[in-house]
Amino acid sequence: MPTLGIDLGGTFVRAAVVDAKGALISSAKAAVMDRKPQGVVETIAQAAEEAVKRAGVKVDGCGVGAAGQIHKDTGVISVAPNLGWRNVPLGEMLKTRLGYGVKVVNDLSAAAWGELHAGAGRGAQDMLVVFVGSGVGSAIIAGGRLVNGAGGVAGELGHIKVVPGGRLCGCGEHGCLEAYAGGHNLIAQTKELLATGSSRILESLVYDDPDSITPVTLEKAANMGDAGAKEIHERAAQFVAVAVANQVTMLNPARLLLGGGVLAHCPGIRQRVLDGVQAWASQTSREGLLVADAELGDDSGIIGAALLAA
Amino acid sequence: MPTLGIDLGGTFVRAAVVDAKGALISSAKAAVMDRKPQGVVETIAQAAEEAVKRAGVKVDGCGVGAAGQIHKDTGVISVAPNLGWRNVPLGEMLKTRLGYGVKVVNDLSAAAWGELHAGAGRGAQDMLVVFVGSGVGSAIIAGGRLVNGAGGVAGELGHIKVVPGGRLCGCGEHGCLEAYAGGHNLIAQTKELLATGSSRILESLVYDDPDSITPVTLEKAANMGDAGAKEIHERAAQFVAVAVANQVTMLNPARLLLGGGVLAHCPGIRQRVLDGVQAWASQTSREGLLVADAELGDDSGIIGAALLAA
Repeated sequence: MPTLGIDLGGTFVRAAVVDAKGALISSAKAAVMDRKPQGVVETIAQAAEEAVKRAGVKVDGCGVGAAGQIHKDTGVISVAPNLGWRNVPLGEMLKTRLGYGVKVVNDLSAAAWGELHAGAGRGAQDMLVVFVGSGVGSAIIAGGRLVNGAGGVAGELGHIKVVPGGRLCGCGEHGCLEAYAGGHNLIAQTKELLATGSSRILESLVYDDPDSITPVTLEKAANMGDAGAKEIHERAAQFVAVAVANQVTMLNPARLLLGGGVLAHCPGIRQRVLDGVQAWASQTSREGLLVADAELGDDSGIIGAALLAA
Repeated sequence: MPTLGIDLGGTFVRAAVVDAKGALISSAKAAVMDRKPQGVVETIAQAAEEAVKRAGVKVDGCGVGAAGQIHKDTGVISVAPNLGWRNVPLGEMLKTRLGYGVKVVNDLSAAAWGELHAGAGRGAQDMLVVFVGSGVGSAIIAGGRLVNGAGGVAGELGHIKVVPGGRLCGCGEHGCLEAYAGGHNLIAQTKELLATGSSRILESLVYDDPDSITPVTLEKAANMGDAGAKEIHERAAQFVAVAVANQVTMLNPARLLLGGGVLAHCPGIRQRVLDGVQAWASQTSREGLLVADAELGDDSGIIGAALLAA
């Protein structure tokens, strides 16, 4: 029977009815106006009911993918930074409201599960999915199962330390991979560079609008020979490449999937990651390794969440 | 019913009969004289039969822990450097000789399984075991299951790259953690330092016998203020500490076990690892984390192998 998949973001809720093979039957979207748990439950329920109505089928079970730290067995969201939540029993609340079983998982885990069953991971049992977008994250599948970790936060690739004591990260710690290579931080570093007044090439690309800067601007400036931009770009690419290569060595996946806006739109960084895996993952761990791009885009999480509830 | 556990090394085979709770009932040891697969099978069988005779009980099933790359489903040893083997179907050969089921696993996986069920890992579902001895390795338990990886080589912590392009490792690649922090390489680096003639303190500890050098010698020289020794020691400790902290961030284990001769006998390095996990593992990943020493010593592998076959 089809199931519901929910993608719970900080500003929007997306709901979709998904069949057992991971195909989207219908979807609906609603804005999160009231961020209090009861308000969000209501928003989810409305989007869910709309999606079910559009699909015109009966559904059984609902999976929710949400950014944050989640207890997989209880469906309690320990921390959801986007929503400012701590210890919200979303699974129970939503179950009461919807009337059927609800499974809550981390958004990247949901995305990886979607790719595993309906995307670029089909057929793999051991997989590492790396996302470099505004943040940096990953999800691990081992022996066909999600690796959640004891507290539900396994896969925090963005918060491994690449420069102990280094650049301050949004998480409050220093020297995290994300502080150097996440999209938000690539932009921040590019703005810092611009503010020094030393980068003519970067200035020529940005004119007087620093807010137009994206990671693509950085890569463009680096490719045009801007020394400062090159340094930021190189460092970020190298840190991601070594980190991913080292996780391939540790986890020995059959498949490595790459996703997220930075990897999709900055081919220079993406290529460095591909080269890095070949150069630095241990020889035995990369035998038989297939590297591919995640292929479901924004739908991966919603499909994965639905399939996890099936 | 009790099972047999086999610890297959390059020079000795140990066999033990182990009960369902992981207690050793009896054991036997035999030297590996003939390293050809058929010869090793015979040596294993003799040790196994001796252990069974001493136990005076019937056994059902046999687990083998061996250093190398092993296909968990088939029991084929793809590569066993100690024995010079490639693609040896040890599981099948031993099954034919012994007359009951045989499971072959990596030696560190066996050791982690032993600690999980009968040692310092009891009660944990998610665990990382790190061994720093002559080499550096690890084993991962996620959701109560061993993470083997697609090719059976997950957990190769010793071969993550800490200095891309750096010091040559025994594996033939450059810049591996093991090349800086494995016991063999700590000794090699200490000998290199001694050969420069610049380290009086080290010289005073070694006299004229470089072959007496162990990782403990290095730590002693570092503690006495030898600048060169300090550098090698600090660098190794820092690399291990960051690597372990980063794996805690990625895997979010409930328990981290430390084992191996270097961590057992060099308290300075061990302490740096403990401090590093506190300083550098992401805050969410170390909530509820328990760090402990592996407690079964040399028996962990044999017990784990037996329990895997139960």
